Amino acid sequence: MQRFINNPDHLVDEAVRGFVKAHRDLVTLHPDNERVIISRSAPVQGRVGIVTGGGSGHEPAFMGYVGHNMVDAVAVGELFSSPTAKSFYDAIKAADGGNGVCVLYGNYAGDNMNVKMAARMAAKDGIQVRTVVANDDVCSAPAAEREKRRGVAGEILMWKVGGAKAATGASLEAVQATAQKALDATRSVGVGLAPCTLPANGKPNFEIAPGTMEVGIGHHGEPGMEVVGLKAADAVADDMLDIVLTEQNLDAGDTVAVLVSGLGATPINELYILYDRIATRLETMSVEIIQPLVGNYFTSLEMMGATLTVMKLDDELRGLLATEANSPGLRVMP
Amino acid sequence: MQRFINNPDHLVDEAVRGFVKAHRDLVTLHPDNERVIISRSAPVQGRVGIVTGGGSGHEPAFMGYVGHNMVDAVAVGELFSSPTAKSFYDAIKAADGGNGVCVLYGNYAGDNMNVKMAARMAAKDGIQVRTVVANDDVCSAPAAEREKRRGVAGEILMWKVGGAKAATGASLEAVQATAQKALDATRSVGVGLAPCTLPANGKPNFEIAPGTMEVGIGHHGEPGMEVVGLKAADAVADDMLDIVLTEQNLDAGDTVAVLVSGLGATPINELYILYDRIATRLETMSVEIIQPLVGNYFTSLEMMGATLTVMKLDDELRGLLATEANSPGLRVMP
Repeated sequence: MQRFINNPDHLVDEAVRGFVKAHRDLVTLHPDNERVIISRSAPVQGRVGIVTGGGSGHEPAFMGYVGHNMVDAVAVGELFSSPTAKSFYDAIKAADGGNGVCVLYGNYAGDNMNVKMAARMAAKDGIQVRTVVANDDVCSAPAAEREKRRGVAGEILMWKVGGAKAATGASLEAVQATAQKALDATRSVGVGLAPCTLPANGKPNFEIAPGTMEVGIGHHGEPGMEVVGLKAADAVADDMLDIVLTEQNLDAGDTVAVLVSGLGATPINELYILYDRIATRLETMSVEIIQPLVGNYFTSLEMMGATLTVMKLDDELRGLLATEANSPGLRVMP
Repeated sequence: MQRFINNPDHLVDEAVRGFVKAHRDLVTLHPDNERVIISRSAPVQGRVGIVTGGGSGHEPAFMGYVGHNMVDAVAVGELFSSPTAKSFYDAIKAADGGNGVCVLYGNYAGDNMNVKMAARMAAKDGIQVRTVVANDDVCSAPAAEREKRRGVAGEILMWKVGGAKAATGASLEAVQATAQKALDATRSVGVGLAPCTLPANGKPNFEIAPGTMEVGIGHHGEPGMEVVGLKAADAVADDMLDIVLTEQNLDAGDTVAVLVSGLGATPINELYILYDRIATRLETMSVEIIQPLVGNYFTSLEMMGATLTVMKLDDELRGLLATEANSPGLRVMP
């Protein structure tokens, strides 16, 4: 295993320490919990707090989206494992400015359980907690069972919208409703070309035969919709776009946010090749792309592959995406 | 080869097209040259223009650093190959605001030759051109032959400084002198853990045996100083820091810029593990780190490994690094 590791058991602690040192202008470590990172802008009295959390190995997600007008506090889990309920609880307390906290996270069993416990603990402290559970990954369950779908890179757009909405001074109910609206307008799909290796294990966590690709793969290598022969980049982009657009009902004149994220090891120029095709297709449909994002925004260690996320925008979402933001993983200039 | 490619011969054109579409708020394609990308802020009448260029496959370098207060125009080469003299010439013309152009590029034979030809062509148009040739890669030649060393990730800091200096309205001579000063204060080193594959070739472009690492590796897999057994992350960070500090003469109270860049496939959390150690070591020396950068800033396709760059700062360099900048690869908030 060709990796920069000291001890797999300390990997997350060391990465968090390095992250907090590298971004000390924007974030700080929770004084009593080394798995909670807090924005230096948080909490703001009277403003709704935004919290997220999830397993490590997806950097810059989740910790990279803590910052000004973004996420206020993040709970950090082990590699590909949920943070503890205590960490979510500490993040909620740190983000609370007296007006409640909205936890915007992904639909995984451990996260669901631990956020629920944390919300109960926070309620005892008098902190109101609302949640939005991201389930943007189209291939992880049929449309009729959308509540079973996983949350993937669409979470980044949900955090951007939620953070910007909270910054307007909106109520907890309004922040939750807008984040939910953002999520409801968002669909994602992943295509995997090669697996990743968890250092404690030392072996690839699944197999993708050379010359094939896994359409609909999850952020931890969860099985996709189908394994097919590896196609040319344009055909892959077409497949991805067809999948995310199935439930989007786009018309000429609509505007969308588009995020193409690498899964870790795919060269960045190939992400732009995918984007070139996606942009051309949307242009042909007379759909306008606002603030596209192309790069390694939500990874899976050194997995090869990419995800496509499309969010259909209304005036409110468009405005909130354009709000100034400053986090290590996403900066929107004023 | 598990990659998102249509045709290796069109890879760069497609990536450039996707890049320009994704960042159309910041950049535009040269109307007559599909291998030249121009900042929407350029040219500014009376301001020195900043140009760079280099082979593709290092994204976000080189094109990602075109933008406001950064590089004004970039010449784009084939994968791991120099741009043509014509492309450098077109970039120079596009960046010229009547006060001369400074070409800040890396020390490779093809780039040297083509920049020299381009400067001669521009001189015939009455455009004054000065150059600074980056040679920050410590292991590529002994200190006594520094002019033979290659330019690597330190170029990013040189572009940041050069772009900010030009933004002050400084003369061509002053911009060149400050960019040269930045470069003279900068040292870099790379460590490779696994090779990369050029799509047209289809096979890894060199070998690194599992369980070993190549210290001093170049951005195209150029042989390093030595191949040794793969060490723990902290020991790798120590080795890298020792190499770059040999010629830096750091004292307690000094300030430095630090850039830890992944080479493409190394998970981002491992870059933070390296940074954690580097920051701790510098702290022990009472050396302060200003605006550290950790991430995939200068890659080599899907190579595994990382580079460390350290720039020793004076008041001017510190101020110029802090100047607002907006490019796809680097944003400094106002």
